[in-house]
Amino acid sequence: MKVSIIGATGYTGAELLRILNMHPAVEISYLTSESHTGAAINTIYPHLSGVYDRCLVSMQAMEDIGRESDVVFIGLPHGHAMEVGKKLAGTVKIIDLGADYRFYNTATYETWYKVPHTHKESGAVYGLTELYREKVKAASIVGNPGCYTTASILALAPLVQKQLVDVTTLVVDAKSGVSGAGRGLSLGSHFTEVFESVKAYNIGGHRHTPEIEQALSELAGTEVVISFTPHLIPMARGILSTCYAKLKPGVTPEQVDQAFADLYGREYFIRLLGRGGYPATKNTRGSNFCDLGWHVDARTGRVIVVAAIDNLVKGAAGQAVQNMNVMFDLDEKTGLNQVPVYP
Amino acid sequence: MKVSIIGATGYTGAELLRILNMHPAVEISYLTSESHTGAAINTIYPHLSGVYDRCLVSMQAMEDIGRESDVVFIGLPHGHAMEVGKKLAGTVKIIDLGADYRFYNTATYETWYKVPHTHKESGAVYGLTELYREKVKAASIVGNPGCYTTASILALAPLVQKQLVDVTTLVVDAKSGVSGAGRGLSLGSHFTEVFESVKAYNIGGHRHTPEIEQALSELAGTEVVISFTPHLIPMARGILSTCYAKLKPGVTPEQVDQAFADLYGREYFIRLLGRGGYPATKNTRGSNFCDLGWHVDARTGRVIVVAAIDNLVKGAAGQAVQNMNVMFDLDEKTGLNQVPVYP
Amino acid sequence: MKVSIIGATGYTGAELLRILNMHPAVEISYLTSESHTGAAINTIYPHLSGVYDRCLVSMQAMEDIGRESDVVFIGLPHGHAMEVGKKLAGTVKIIDLGADYRFYNTATYETWYKVPHTHKESGAVYGLTELYREKVKAASIVGNPGCYTTASILALAPLVQKQLVDVTTLVVDAKSGVSGAGRGLSLGSHFTEVFESVKAYNIGGHRHTPEIEQALSELAGTEVVISFTPHLIPMARGILSTCYAKLKPGVTPEQVDQAFADLYGREYFIRLLGRGGYPATKNTRGSNFCDLGWHVDARTGRVIVVAAIDNLVKGAAGQAVQNMNVMFDLDEKTGLNQVPVYP
Amino acid sequence: MKVSIIGATGYTGAELLRILNMHPAVEISYLTSESHTGAAINTIYPHLSGVYDRCLVSMQAMEDIGRESDVVFIGLPHGHAMEVGKKLAGTVKIIDLGADYRFYNTATYETWYKVPHTHKESGAVYGLTELYREKVKAASIVGNPGCYTTASILALAPLVQKQLVDVTTLVVDAKSGVSGAGRGLSLGSHFTEVFESVKAYNIGGHRHTPEIEQALSELAGTEVVISFTPHLIPMARGILSTCYAKLKPGVTPEQVDQAFADLYGREYFIRLLGRGGYPATKNTRGSNFCDLGWHVDARTGRVIVVAAIDNLVKGAAGQAVQNMNVMFDLDEKTGLNQVPVYP
Repeated sequence: MKVSIIGATGYTGAELLRILNMHPAVEISYLTSESHTGAAINTIYPHLSGVYDRCLVSMQAMEDIGRESDVVFIGLPHGHAMEVGKKLAGTVKIIDLGADYRFYNTATYETWYKVPHTHKESGAVYGLTELYREKVKAASIVGNPGCYTTASILALAPLVQKQLVDVTTLVVDAKSGVSGAGRGLSLGSHFTEVFESVKAYNIGGHRHTPEIEQALSELAGTEVVISFTPHLIPMARGILSTCYAKLKPGVTPEQVDQAFADLYGREYFIRLLGRGGYPATKNTRGSNFCDLGWHVDARTGRVIVVAAIDNLVKGAAGQAVQNMNVMFDLDEKTGLNQVPVYP
Repeated sequence: MKVSIIGATGYTGAELLRILNMHPAVEISYLTSESHTGAAINTIYPHLSGVYDRCLVSMQAMEDIGRESDVVFIGLPHGHAMEVGKKLAGTVKIIDLGADYRFYNTATYETWYKVPHTHKESGAVYGLTELYREKVKAASIVGNPGCYTTASILALAPLVQKQLVDVTTLVVDAKSGVSGAGRGLSLGSHFTEVFESVKAYNIGGHRHTPEIEQALSELAGTEVVISFTPHLIPMARGILSTCYAKLKPGVTPEQVDQAFADLYGREYFIRLLGRGGYPATKNTRGSNFCDLGWHVDARTGRVIVVAAIDNLVKGAAGQAVQNMNVMFDLDEKTGLNQVPVYP
Repeated sequence: MKVSIIGATGYTGAELLRILNMHPAVEISYLTSESHTGAAINTIYPHLSGVYDRCLVSMQAMEDIGRESDVVFIGLPHGHAMEVGKKLAGTVKIIDLGADYRFYNTATYETWYKVPHTHKESGAVYGLTELYREKVKAASIVGNPGCYTTASILALAPLVQKQLVDVTTLVVDAKSGVSGAGRGLSLGSHFTEVFESVKAYNIGGHRHTPEIEQALSELAGTEVVISFTPHLIPMARGILSTCYAKLKPGVTPEQVDQAFADLYGREYFIRLLGRGGYPATKNTRGSNFCDLGWHVDARTGRVIVVAAIDNLVKGAAGQAVQNMNVMFDLDEKTGLNQVPVYP
Repeated sequence: MKVSIIGATGYTGAELLRILNMHPAVEISYLTSESHTGAAINTIYPHLSGVYDRCLVSMQAMEDIGRESDVVFIGLPHGHAMEVGKKLAGTVKIIDLGADYRFYNTATYETWYKVPHTHKESGAVYGLTELYREKVKAASIVGNPGCYTTASILALAPLVQKQLVDVTTLVVDAKSGVSGAGRGLSLGSHFTEVFESVKAYNIGGHRHTPEIEQALSELAGTEVVISFTPHLIPMARGILSTCYAKLKPGVTPEQVDQAFADLYGREYFIRLLGRGGYPATKNTRGSNFCDLGWHVDARTGRVIVVAAIDNLVKGAAGQAVQNMNVMFDLDEKTGLNQVPVYP
């Protein structure tokens, strides 16, 4: 299977390469970069030396890319991916790791991302694999979920789907490593500013909010509005999402357990630590696992669910490859058998 | 003023020494340790070499300690401090950095700490200085607040006091550096286990919960029950407390602003970053400051308050010295003019 | 191929499992632990859940282990491995990750490790694969090199072998992440003590010193004595070894370059960054690569070589699997195609 | 005493403000910044809120600054400080934290810094206080030493001064936290690139090399050339300098001990951990201490000295204030009684 990556020099692109290298059915076709055209990828990411020494090309050669690829991953900033998507649609399968194809209602996209959506009839499918596997299987374009969203939706989906919680009480407090902010320079990602510090940011305004709400609303059968607060943690990888909800009157801890077992009992990449379990991001690092633990607090009538993922794997490149496997009818785990790197 | 520290070899004891060294009115009288009796404190904490080279004594010499001290700080595990407190009560002022003297209702203490309270008539005062200054001034025994509690109570007090929020909706999601777990060895504080990882712990059961509830209930005039979730963050110092509450109908952002200004406008150690402000623990490191920022989210009807402190300073030793200053009628800032150590 | 691990619950054991999971020819037979007999490995290392859920057995069942294994990895403290080795010798291939089988002259072992060597006629081979591949191929017992030693020997071997440097001037200054200290609790590995700090330890006395000297002496054809200083760095994985030597008079930079090319030009796991290159541990993390860069300083007449490895992979479990592949005539890279986990 | 800082918005400027705040004789006059003219310093460094809220001015107002200052600290890039120095010379005392005034032989400066020196007749004194105290006392302009240089010179000075070591064998392997690279954005200081990684840089070419050589040559009475290798460590503050030298034949460990005692026995800021001592950067963090430990390795005939400092304090702002105290005949410790912030 021939694979190209449009916009290969971000952390997500590098992570795709790491994972695809272990995928037995994949052959890399093109890697593009507009800022580094002509450079070998390993001069930009020396850790890839000896693994990928291939040169980056411009995405201007889009026809060649389309012709010599079976699937294209897009790692461009939002707004740019849909331009590529329009050109490639119908010729190759597309998996976009940005936001352009994540919203069924493109008006929501336009409200939160402040740009007009120019590819409304794409037929894109939202690629949270465990929840939308059948749709992904049939899709030509997949909008791969965000990192915070993957963790948060997976944490809350069983409870919302089974109507066990009051959806007006949902609070998601998430903590992310700094790689989520990308490789672009900013004071907010400067080592000495981030190290030995924790802070919240974008309270009430983070763009992953409507994505979580879209999925939960669909599961709930009613419009769900959540409070979502992201935090920056002094580590490179990992997201921990701590989710709060009031249980509906009479809901038992066993019903909560059952909801998780029902939805995820057969999912390889979702590891249920059970009631009382405490996921840690380190246990998932470098792997496509999402670890879930939940707690029923009788004193407050709340259920607290904690989800841990590696933001670059299950939160980005890993889930993208998982979706690729589904789209091409391969075993979903192919190329994704990396064991977490611990410690 | 002669000062002794009972149980001086924990991180809190070392931090007290750091701060007291800059206090012009303080002279150290005794430092005790049962496990290191006879050792010089700087063999246990080499960073104190040249500053404190004094030897540790056993607290068996309690009469001497009482006679030659004006104030005694207690840094013992819960259950042990009240034994010391009973012996010294009436002869010296006492500031306990543990939990034994934090609860007005000792039954609450007994429920959460699983030991009988043996000093119920101590007359101890809860030492969250900004809220209980007048009581501290008159107190003989002060129960110095916990680290999580200091940040969380200070964050929510203005809103609860002014009745601006629905107190049945309070969620406190807190993140702490590892020094909060002390110097005792455990796999949970082992470098390679903690580094590059985040996790929650003690969900629904952390002992700082009833302490926060005690203060908020008093402010609210009604019993308040909260969800409190602590997290361990890969850094040494710092606590960030992110607090969620539903605003009561009709409450305006300006009323929220006013509540903070009213309660803290004249407080030196509380820095109001204002509506939209984002405290970071790094900005408080090594200092007694508590930074507060708040956010009114019209979409969800919630107010989110973020508090940042250094857990060992405002969350422990710094506030203890602040209380000492109040008890001895000194300028509250004496010895506490450390500027945050940044970066 | 059936594989057992004696002493599977250290970081090295866990890392072996991570790597072996991707080895197509390997089937795990037994995992032993005396302190956790009967427990499932994933209760001790939750990151292995869903990958390895197998129970730990006692190594008392040594006969079974020998009968049902083709190769046994030993992850026991020094002194204990040779007891196992004596029992299993002749029935299975053995790869010991400790020090017991690393010294040709067991008197050197006894001097530095302070215990009598009880398996002197083992015929063990020192498993620094790139230098001793042919011997490893024929070996029944391999003493897998230490972490510091792997990096340091690989850095200096080309220069010493080609007689380009004055071997009386060798200084090795090495920096290691904390995982090298293992999972055993100690104040020296306590998070808050290690974090935001660097220190040297065991100056002049670290046990990897004679191991480096053994290899360099053999290459030089004369007895080599080095200064070796290890340092502890606040990170989990990685070793950087900075090696200093005076060039012999008249040696040119090109001769230095050629020495590296000659010895390592065809080695997959050794990546030559060339003269002026700067290895970083992060570029090797999670992989079996050793990155080398060197610098010729005309001003001082010294050559400085820098080597970077992941201490748990090329410095332990990865090289052990590499040796296993050599011993069983498999492609040396089998199971070792992990791309470095970056960032 | 009126103090101004020219170029106040770097980490060194911020650290000067932290320290000067505790200096009882100091009153801040002007803080300048060309890029942030008109902004309040606490908008750039929020940790200073409530401590310094003063506005930054342009250094165009140099005459005012000169008139209303007793001493001026300069925190400008090299090449720029001497322009300021020329204007202010003779009117105020000057302490430059950059390289412009560090070299007695300005040709050395020009060779390594690649710019012409335009203030050759400045009469500047090199401000490594413990070694040049008497000269500093009489100086009008002080070139404050670099961070690596302070640690490295202090480590080697006793041995070189007493002629105990062969100065052709000096190797300095230094490790620095990232704050040494400043607040300017670069991929090399990007959190995710630096974290969990160690690397060397500028081997054989770092500009602190000639500074160390200048001081050691003067002490040795002969020209000294050293190998100096800096490394970047994933922490914010701290420098550890590990220094290697061959002892001259017949030199005893006691002579080494005596050399340290003779030179530093009465120095408050230099803490001698003795032979066998292991300094750790954490023990000095936030303080002006330099910790020294040394090791005599009979096996190799080498002495290894380890120095630890906080690069922003003893390696920059702290030593600058120490020099200011000397220049103004104050107790050298004034304002510098900060106890290290541990852990």
